[in-house]
Amino acid sequence: MENKDMQAVNTPKLNKATIIVHSGDMDKIYSALIIGNGALSMGMEVSLYFTFFGLQRLKKGELDKGPLSKMNMLGLGKMMIKKRMDKANVASLEKMITDFKELGGKILACDMTMEVMGVKPEDLRQDLISDYCSVGTYIKEAMESSMTLFI
Amino acid sequence: MENKDMQAVNTPKLNKATIIVHSGDMDKIYSALIIGNGALSMGMEVSLYFTFFGLQRLKKGELDKGPLSKMNMLGLGKMMIKKRMDKANVASLEKMITDFKELGGKILACDMTMEVMGVKPEDLRQDLISDYCSVGTYIKEAMESSMTLFI
Amino acid sequence: MENKDMQAVNTPKLNKATIIVHSGDMDKIYSALIIGNGALSMGMEVSLYFTFFGLQRLKKGELDKGPLSKMNMLGLGKMMIKKRMDKANVASLEKMITDFKELGGKILACDMTMEVMGVKPEDLRQDLISDYCSVGTYIKEAMESSMTLFI
Repeated sequence: MENKDMQAVNTPKLNKATIIVHSGDMDKIYSALIIGNGALSMGMEVSLYFTFFGLQRLKKGELDKGPLSKMNMLGLGKMMIKKRMDKANVASLEKMITDFKELGGKILACDMTMEVMGVKPEDLRQDLISDYCSVGTYIKEAMESSMTLFI
Repeated sequence: MENKDMQAVNTPKLNKATIIVHSGDMDKIYSALIIGNGALSMGMEVSLYFTFFGLQRLKKGELDKGPLSKMNMLGLGKMMIKKRMDKANVASLEKMITDFKELGGKILACDMTMEVMGVKPEDLRQDLISDYCSVGTYIKEAMESSMTLFI
Repeated sequence: MENKDMQAVNTPKLNKATIIVHSGDMDKIYSALIIGNGALSMGMEVSLYFTFFGLQRLKKGELDKGPLSKMNMLGLGKMMIKKRMDKANVASLEKMITDFKELGGKILACDMTMEVMGVKPEDLRQDLISDYCSVGTYIKEAMESSMTLFI
């Protein structure tokens, strides 16, 4: 068993989280960034890999668009939610993603999604994106991560 | 590389699963509890971190409410599904979550969701909740887990 | 801490990904297979565990049915998407899942879902399925995996 153990772990793990952001739902983007910023604050490396509907949110002007529509489904009015989020010190997505970058987080954009959807680099928030890459890059990041999520 | 390896694994891993329950969909709650109870039965530690729509399900009277509506989407009538679930020995969510607690599982409630949604501890199933906490606690749990999921 | 470390890792990890395919959404099935094939190409073992709505996609004739309906939500017409996917060399799901099997990937079907939904083995793509099994098998696969996702 111990010998198998030694052979088994063939990729050294970093204290790192790699998160696929597939969904474009506002609440899911919040979750991704709350987890990402939390992990960075606690000393982990973090890569967010934006793909499919998630990548749409990285288009210019899309990040905080309609931010409360989904939240409304929880049964509260827009103003009420806004007030409560302020009171609970929940930042806007724009603030959160800027913090994420400043804390050293990495944002990867899925180039296959870009090609299929006809999205060009200049359509995207290039100030936020660390790299444009394909699934191979994601797998490499995930293989060295101790924590993987699909959101 | 071997030196890096030694430094890389800086958080000892327990045989433990930490699962974020973000969705409130009935079928997703089923999945979370089936996986959670399965993992506990096989000797793992398990923490479920309820947040966003998932946390709404921990309000009093919400867990088994409308349990079959989503299942109906699979194209079967309510009575038919109920009969088949009984036949397949699939327990109610109430039974499953009680089993989860008895098997030693931990249920964590996201305090940011509570604050934003105006949910008070007394609105929630306090008999089920082990602790009220924030993303930092989740990250700590996840860092020592060998298995992480976002549901 | 070092002693705890030694005890903590009680399941040897393989260079392996175990992915639950819970969703039946076309874009999520794409993501699961793109990740699965990418991981196989890079030398990982991969198990896909199909359950709930995901399992419905393994019924005969269901895999590529209405493949673009969900993609349409990104705001492009069906023909346009089809042309772009061809141009971007994105294969059909049928091609992808066949590649997945040929690369040595394992497809597991959740027997509880089958029983609840009244799905029989002969209703399913038996040419693709490696095994019919329950949550215990999934946990065993996940426990020896270095990467776990819930899609």
